[in-house]
Amino acid sequence: MKFSFRPVEGAFYDLFTQAANNLVKGTELLNELGLPGVDVQSVSDRLTDVEHDSDQITHDLYKKINSTFITPFDREDIYSLGSQLDDVMDHLEAVGNLLYLYGLTELPSLPREMHELVDVLDQQAKITAGAMPRLRTMKDLEEYWIEINRLENEGDRAYRMLLVRLFSGEYDALTVLKMKEVADELEAACDAFEHVANTVETIAVKES
Amino acid sequence: MKFSFRPVEGAFYDLFTQAANNLVKGTELLNELGLPGVDVQSVSDRLTDVEHDSDQITHDLYKKINSTFITPFDREDIYSLGSQLDDVMDHLEAVGNLLYLYGLTELPSLPREMHELVDVLDQQAKITAGAMPRLRTMKDLEEYWIEINRLENEGDRAYRMLLVRLFSGEYDALTVLKMKEVADELEAACDAFEHVANTVETIAVKES
Amino acid sequence: MKFSFRPVEGAFYDLFTQAANNLVKGTELLNELGLPGVDVQSVSDRLTDVEHDSDQITHDLYKKINSTFITPFDREDIYSLGSQLDDVMDHLEAVGNLLYLYGLTELPSLPREMHELVDVLDQQAKITAGAMPRLRTMKDLEEYWIEINRLENEGDRAYRMLLVRLFSGEYDALTVLKMKEVADELEAACDAFEHVANTVETIAVKES
Repeated sequence: MKFSFRPVEGAFYDLFTQAANNLVKGTELLNELGLPGVDVQSVSDRLTDVEHDSDQITHDLYKKINSTFITPFDREDIYSLGSQLDDVMDHLEAVGNLLYLYGLTELPSLPREMHELVDVLDQQAKITAGAMPRLRTMKDLEEYWIEINRLENEGDRAYRMLLVRLFSGEYDALTVLKMKEVADELEAACDAFEHVANTVETIAVKES
Repeated sequence: MKFSFRPVEGAFYDLFTQAANNLVKGTELLNELGLPGVDVQSVSDRLTDVEHDSDQITHDLYKKINSTFITPFDREDIYSLGSQLDDVMDHLEAVGNLLYLYGLTELPSLPREMHELVDVLDQQAKITAGAMPRLRTMKDLEEYWIEINRLENEGDRAYRMLLVRLFSGEYDALTVLKMKEVADELEAACDAFEHVANTVETIAVKES
Repeated sequence: MKFSFRPVEGAFYDLFTQAANNLVKGTELLNELGLPGVDVQSVSDRLTDVEHDSDQITHDLYKKINSTFITPFDREDIYSLGSQLDDVMDHLEAVGNLLYLYGLTELPSLPREMHELVDVLDQQAKITAGAMPRLRTMKDLEEYWIEINRLENEGDRAYRMLLVRLFSGEYDALTVLKMKEVADELEAACDAFEHVANTVETIAVKES
């Protein structure tokens, strides 16, 4: 019988869960950008705060890896998972930051496909946050990574249709370039959630 | 003495070979795009079919990893190799799909450097398909990864010259942006073949 | 007691140090591009020479991995570190090459933020070169990776402000596209230095 809970292990699962909960905060802030009359600078600033929280969590995780003799799974995998959760946040923060810096929210409206991508990210964040505590038992994780992959495919399609829209002639070349930067960060966030899921799958394969 | 063939191991090599043979189908479809009067939608649709086949092969491979007690080499390496072969296909499919979606094939002709990149990919696909069955004996693989790296350098040069062409003023800004997307997917496919070869090299180093 | 020096191990540390010293040569060449009346083709050619040197060092390293029975740390980590040092050089060479190919140095001046990015790279190269010999004792490496990460954040900010500048309307669309390519290579070089530092951290975590 495998003894599945020790206090020190609990700390790792807690940090992963905190990191994923922070991603939910991030996608909810991006969702606010779709609201009429939103204060974009404030959203961008709050995203930066959430991103700093994530950095702190990642830092605590690395310290914990270095100071713990027995880790619940391979050190390198804990390390990968932590840095990949952090990568998602970096892309979410970049989206808010670029929208603000480029003044894109001064346009009458952002393309519908951009909101679709944010919606995909929001779903990915929520099921990632739901899955992290299940690392403890390694049970019921398969549905999580299958769903993340499905959402990543949906995000890919939305991204592709967004580019078709951007290149349709509706916007001038500089606006297209700016929106393309934002679109790339949205798509990178979508991929980054998939990287997290792939690492969880790798860990589950090793433990099985 | 190392016993090099067991039925269950054979299944892994077969799946890698199938995945690589599928990439050859993919690059041959891209080659068709250079033919006069080609039906681009049909090519794009057939690429999507081939891409779905690849997804199925990758899925079968992962199931096989999970249900097999002794694998011919490290589980993680089998996993990496499978997902990297799948990545190549994703980029090949994107090329056909974007050319169709953006209506780029309605131009009098695509830049010569684009055809050169497709030709590099076709060569990479063929020697990758030739190398996969040799994983069984781990013999004569060095020439494969050296050649893939050489082709990747050739692809890099073609990509760079393609960008020089795109930015020369010959095309309007939106057309440049569309072609740039296609060029980036071609170059990513070229790189993705190199990632496959790097993983084969890593496996060979461990086994040697 | 761990015996920290054997002749064969020394060869590995020497190769890492040589590779990093080559990166310093690379960033110093990029710095020359900021000088008035510089011969851009000559800088680009010398960058290509330094890049070939790096390829040779990487090749020697791989041969050494394959011919050595006991390596100072995991084969795969030596392999990663070597290929990541090589990646940095590829991006540095691309910067010089693209500036030359696109004729960008014929502009009255390059954006200030571009010089800032080169300056960040130059600092990253120097502290990387200073850290490589310390792999031998695994001592005093933490300050190295913390500083690289700090510089990578600084580079990210400079990159973002460079994009704001490029998209400000000061340049025509094709010039923006060309400069964006250069900017992306500068930022990729910055990231690539961080990947090197992350691998050093992973090695240090394992050895501790």
